[in-house]
Amino acid sequence: MRVAILAHEGFPDRAKTAVGILRYADDEVVAVLDRTRAGERVRDHVSDVRGAPIVDGIDAVEEPIDALVVGIAPIGGGFDETWRPDVTGALERGADVVAGLHYFVGDDEEFARLADEHGAEIRDLRRPPDDLSVSDGTASEIDAEVVLTVGTDCSSGKMTTTFELAEAARERGVDAGVVPTGQTGIAIEDYGIAVDRVVSDFAAGAVERMVTERASEFDVLFVEGQGAVAHPAYSGVTTSVLHGAMPDRLVLCHVAGRDAVHGYEHVPISPPGEYAALYESLAEPVAPAEVVAGSLNTQRLDDDAAGQAIDDYADAVGAPATDPVRFDASELLPAVLGEE
Amino acid sequence: MRVAILAHEGFPDRAKTAVGILRYADDEVVAVLDRTRAGERVRDHVSDVRGAPIVDGIDAVEEPIDALVVGIAPIGGGFDETWRPDVTGALERGADVVAGLHYFVGDDEEFARLADEHGAEIRDLRRPPDDLSVSDGTASEIDAEVVLTVGTDCSSGKMTTTFELAEAARERGVDAGVVPTGQTGIAIEDYGIAVDRVVSDFAAGAVERMVTERASEFDVLFVEGQGAVAHPAYSGVTTSVLHGAMPDRLVLCHVAGRDAVHGYEHVPISPPGEYAALYESLAEPVAPAEVVAGSLNTQRLDDDAAGQAIDDYADAVGAPATDPVRFDASELLPAVLGEE
Repeated sequence: MRVAILAHEGFPDRAKTAVGILRYADDEVVAVLDRTRAGERVRDHVSDVRGAPIVDGIDAVEEPIDALVVGIAPIGGGFDETWRPDVTGALERGADVVAGLHYFVGDDEEFARLADEHGAEIRDLRRPPDDLSVSDGTASEIDAEVVLTVGTDCSSGKMTTTFELAEAARERGVDAGVVPTGQTGIAIEDYGIAVDRVVSDFAAGAVERMVTERASEFDVLFVEGQGAVAHPAYSGVTTSVLHGAMPDRLVLCHVAGRDAVHGYEHVPISPPGEYAALYESLAEPVAPAEVVAGSLNTQRLDDDAAGQAIDDYADAVGAPATDPVRFDASELLPAVLGEE
Repeated sequence: MRVAILAHEGFPDRAKTAVGILRYADDEVVAVLDRTRAGERVRDHVSDVRGAPIVDGIDAVEEPIDALVVGIAPIGGGFDETWRPDVTGALERGADVVAGLHYFVGDDEEFARLADEHGAEIRDLRRPPDDLSVSDGTASEIDAEVVLTVGTDCSSGKMTTTFELAEAARERGVDAGVVPTGQTGIAIEDYGIAVDRVVSDFAAGAVERMVTERASEFDVLFVEGQGAVAHPAYSGVTTSVLHGAMPDRLVLCHVAGRDAVHGYEHVPISPPGEYAALYESLAEPVAPAEVVAGSLNTQRLDDDAAGQAIDDYADAVGAPATDPVRFDASELLPAVLGEE
């Protein structure tokens, strides 16, 4: 699929979905829309992804596109009205619009009418299926190995680690699939349910459904975790993913140096070893799983400090660790695949 | 408020909401509707509640009523079409209809039209407010003591224990309020949010909002917990209540002899002491709280066995315990109010 990605005033640091698609999706990205960086190139900002021009709006995208993907999520998940000309422009070309906002683009009357007129589709990735139900507690019976990324905070690298591990496993010939649980992962895979948007009674059931579906397609599933189990706002979502997926093994993701919950600075983050033990305690009565590897985001450190931080983190977690973006996720595979 | 309670084919054992209202609400119950028990009396079945006749339908209720309350919840939470004449009959009298079903009675065209015509209101207790948001992580700052009931399973006595403790505290002169989180508690209090029906991202936020609101009215809040933290389907809701409420103290509720999760018999229930420790571990990094008391449902035991089971349970939990329905919740108050 040929896509343009909308990331106005956010690329690359506040455009997690845009960077995720550039890095992991099969789509061909023909342009990134960021009016503050028009004329620059994607590779000026993110080195390890496919190249593409940055333009100021949809009218500057000359190639045909199949879809415009909203690649940023403002705080609150609302629709920014300055994006309207880009969305209408895409729909008028007959291109689909794909968005993972809390606000559903498809519910906008103008957009819905344009989509109808031009034979385009609007896909709101966070819109839950309408036939969800409570979990049966059966994910542990599926015929695939399940590895879940868990974190010490939001934005601690769970989505990235999930995709890096899956890619590394595929390179080794493992039939590995991803179970995305958030909008970026869903945009990359064109599959998945945004678990945080599901009625809380059905959150574990939504994860169970995905794991069960994908187990019929893959030998190993990498499930994208959400939130953190000691996060004051999102721990319920985290717990639902843990108990809905019933993983065989856990990978603990952490940001080097982060010692308080992002946005909730009055809540300290427990030491990684204690955090790992808490996940294991919570998994144990439902479906036992151990933290077998650690993933550390060392983006803010230099090479020496990163190496030292990873060594310390591995000691704290009691398992092999790396930074899968800076270094190589394949180092973790023996532990993650249960070969050790 | 004068109410009739609909409980067809369910009174009393499968009519938790009906019994809860009879036992704890301020409403005057003029009749219970159960066509299989017409002509009997409420007190023939439940001894410790206010008396009322049981009748076969709304037309047999001769007294004026302010509302018809749906007092049973079929599996799945659907609306049973055999109830339609009772609901239409109530609305045609101008009585409100109050329901805690997953299915929203107010969305039914016939009911909505009748309510409109007769000046009646339909209140769907599980319909969440439309302005919920993520929690701020601030419930620990409120100016009230917060006691949360937690459980080893669904239907383990959390709602009952919450109301029994609040009543016992009020009898001692404590300015105690309840924070209901499920439909029965909401029906009793005419206040609250059904947390399991809230978008999972907002579940902790919904609890935080209620605790914060009620803290301005009461000195001590008894928060009704939901589910169980090792329940394969509902643990996310449980965790959201725990971290949203940030309680000072926990009361662990358990059903004597129950050793597997109800409806998920392949999932064993951990021993009560381990279960208590798991709740404390999960509370600790966000807002530390200890299990200070135990509540044991001994309904299926004789008096001798009940006494022994309570002693054993107190030993296992390491805290005073009782059956607050069979015996007296006030025994737990010193521990629950932090006086010990």
